[in-house]
Amino acid sequence: MTPSEAINDLFKQKVCWLSDSGPDDDIAISSRIRFARNLSDYDFPIQAADAALCEIRDQVLDCMRHISVSEKIPVREFPMDEISVLDRKFLMERHLISREFVNPRNGAALVTSREQGTFVMINEEDHLRIQVLAPGFQLNSLWDRIDHLDDLLSESLQFAYDKRLGYLTACPTNLGTAMRASVMLHLPGLALTNQIETCVQAIGKLGLTVRGLFGEGSKNQGNFYQISNQSSLGESEQEIIRRLSAIIGQIITNEKKARSLLLASKRSFLLNHVSRAYGLLRHSYLISGSEALEALSALRLGVDMGMFQELKIHTVNELFLLVQRAHLQKYSERELDQNERDEVRASLLREKLNS
Amino acid sequence: MTPSEAINDLFKQKVCWLSDSGPDDDIAISSRIRFARNLSDYDFPIQAADAALCEIRDQVLDCMRHISVSEKIPVREFPMDEISVLDRKFLMERHLISREFVNPRNGAALVTSREQGTFVMINEEDHLRIQVLAPGFQLNSLWDRIDHLDDLLSESLQFAYDKRLGYLTACPTNLGTAMRASVMLHLPGLALTNQIETCVQAIGKLGLTVRGLFGEGSKNQGNFYQISNQSSLGESEQEIIRRLSAIIGQIITNEKKARSLLLASKRSFLLNHVSRAYGLLRHSYLISGSEALEALSALRLGVDMGMFQELKIHTVNELFLLVQRAHLQKYSERELDQNERDEVRASLLREKLNS
Repeated sequence: MTPSEAINDLFKQKVCWLSDSGPDDDIAISSRIRFARNLSDYDFPIQAADAALCEIRDQVLDCMRHISVSEKIPVREFPMDEISVLDRKFLMERHLISREFVNPRNGAALVTSREQGTFVMINEEDHLRIQVLAPGFQLNSLWDRIDHLDDLLSESLQFAYDKRLGYLTACPTNLGTAMRASVMLHLPGLALTNQIETCVQAIGKLGLTVRGLFGEGSKNQGNFYQISNQSSLGESEQEIIRRLSAIIGQIITNEKKARSLLLASKRSFLLNHVSRAYGLLRHSYLISGSEALEALSALRLGVDMGMFQELKIHTVNELFLLVQRAHLQKYSERELDQNERDEVRASLLREKLNS
Repeated sequence: MTPSEAINDLFKQKVCWLSDSGPDDDIAISSRIRFARNLSDYDFPIQAADAALCEIRDQVLDCMRHISVSEKIPVREFPMDEISVLDRKFLMERHLISREFVNPRNGAALVTSREQGTFVMINEEDHLRIQVLAPGFQLNSLWDRIDHLDDLLSESLQFAYDKRLGYLTACPTNLGTAMRASVMLHLPGLALTNQIETCVQAIGKLGLTVRGLFGEGSKNQGNFYQISNQSSLGESEQEIIRRLSAIIGQIITNEKKARSLLLASKRSFLLNHVSRAYGLLRHSYLISGSEALEALSALRLGVDMGMFQELKIHTVNELFLLVQRAHLQKYSERELDQNERDEVRASLLREKLNS
């Protein structure tokens, strides 16, 4: 299977962290943990020579192949230089690679399980960015998974580690556990009751980071907020996860309260908000990405609140992926200009929502 | 039947100039001619004493009753001081009375045929404002009707007339024929192809007046333009109508061309414009009057262009009336605040468009 065929296979695969059910998945879309790791015998990618980067890649790929066999997890390998820019953008929209990986350095590669719940970026900022994803709010089970994977990788790879500083990373902000744990939350209730700004500020004061749908540098769209730990130093992994989980649990409670409040005291307003979004999605013949995202956000709220009998939350979740630029072009099997994308996006939404 | 009961009867009656078919009624909503007349033995309403105004009213009502019998046109009489402010606003929304008549002077009254195609305002700016309305673009047939009615009224009423100046009117701009002929046009094609401004300017240069949906002083809403003669002096009635008809015929041709152009070269844009409006109307739970008007305007265009099989243009035409403030309150049989109106308007639109 060529990398291009493998991408097409990935496009058709379900995305486990969006399609499966998980705890509190009415509000928590997905949970994620990533570890940054570097091989002790090499410079960080930014300084490493091309030959070294290729050696690193080959070592990690080799190691992942063994784990794939021993753990019975089928994986796919994507050397970044062998896939097209469109396919890289597609992987970014799937949250499998970072923005940086769209223009990768030599030796950059991705290894991912078919349902995209476990994946490793090789030669991004660090030699390895190990990631696990799961639907809903479940950091503890993710921790068990990534910790196990990290143990397996450590058996054949020598990670750069300092007794005082912990895992060594290219960027000092990742020193220590080199772990970032995050949960993607959908908070339309807090947004519609004008509590979201206060909430975001409070989260910041508690030492957590709030980001948009596409992580670092992305702005808020569709009321999606990714909450993660700011620092990886000075606390153990379990402490970080415990503290993060406690705060996220509180945000979920607040979001539920906001939704109940809307239903009790602003019923028409809520119904109007959701139903208009549904009307827009079902009746547009041209729709921009941001319009679709905002309308899907409102629709997701309505589905969560039981306003739609026939529509499943996972259908809506998948639409968030499918309406993106690169996904639309994979769906159409050709490159599309902006007007064509707006047309295909509208057509796809009508098709998926009218059935 | 009390005036209040008569108003309720009127509310339920079909409005002939919106519900019936007429020439070019895809673009021309309705045609209208009004004559201003004054009784020669009395001061103009603005100067007349209350007793004189009441005498005038009684004479005109008496005359109209005789005509109603001889011509077999059932009419209703509405002394303005006997009906509520809400009911007056309702009559204004039906285009049966002017804004001035919502706060009328003594002796003000309306006489209207049941289907509201012929009506007379008594003691508005002039003693009589005689009006006829018909669906579509048909000024000639209206001319025959109003000329006949004017003849019948002249048999028992002595109109103020000067050989040099023609019919004498309270405002000198109406001197002469004292006639205003107008056609209400729906011009979304010219608006969507950005030709409307040029068109409106050209109409002005040809000595015609362009107004909005509610005549004098009303701004453009929903792409409705009322085109009428500016001057009533120096030309005969037939000349005015001939000149007005020629120009309106040209505007209708231009609007048709604009629609064909949109269909040929901006199909998705057009479809999107119409379909989104339909989606909004079918799925809102709160909708303002101006939002509804703009969306109905787009929907009307779609129906005219054959995009909706089940929906009739007259249903859409009637919705333009029904979504107005006073109509909603008549429909609900109670006074409504703004939020309630937005709710009832949305509910009415969903009901009428889902069937």
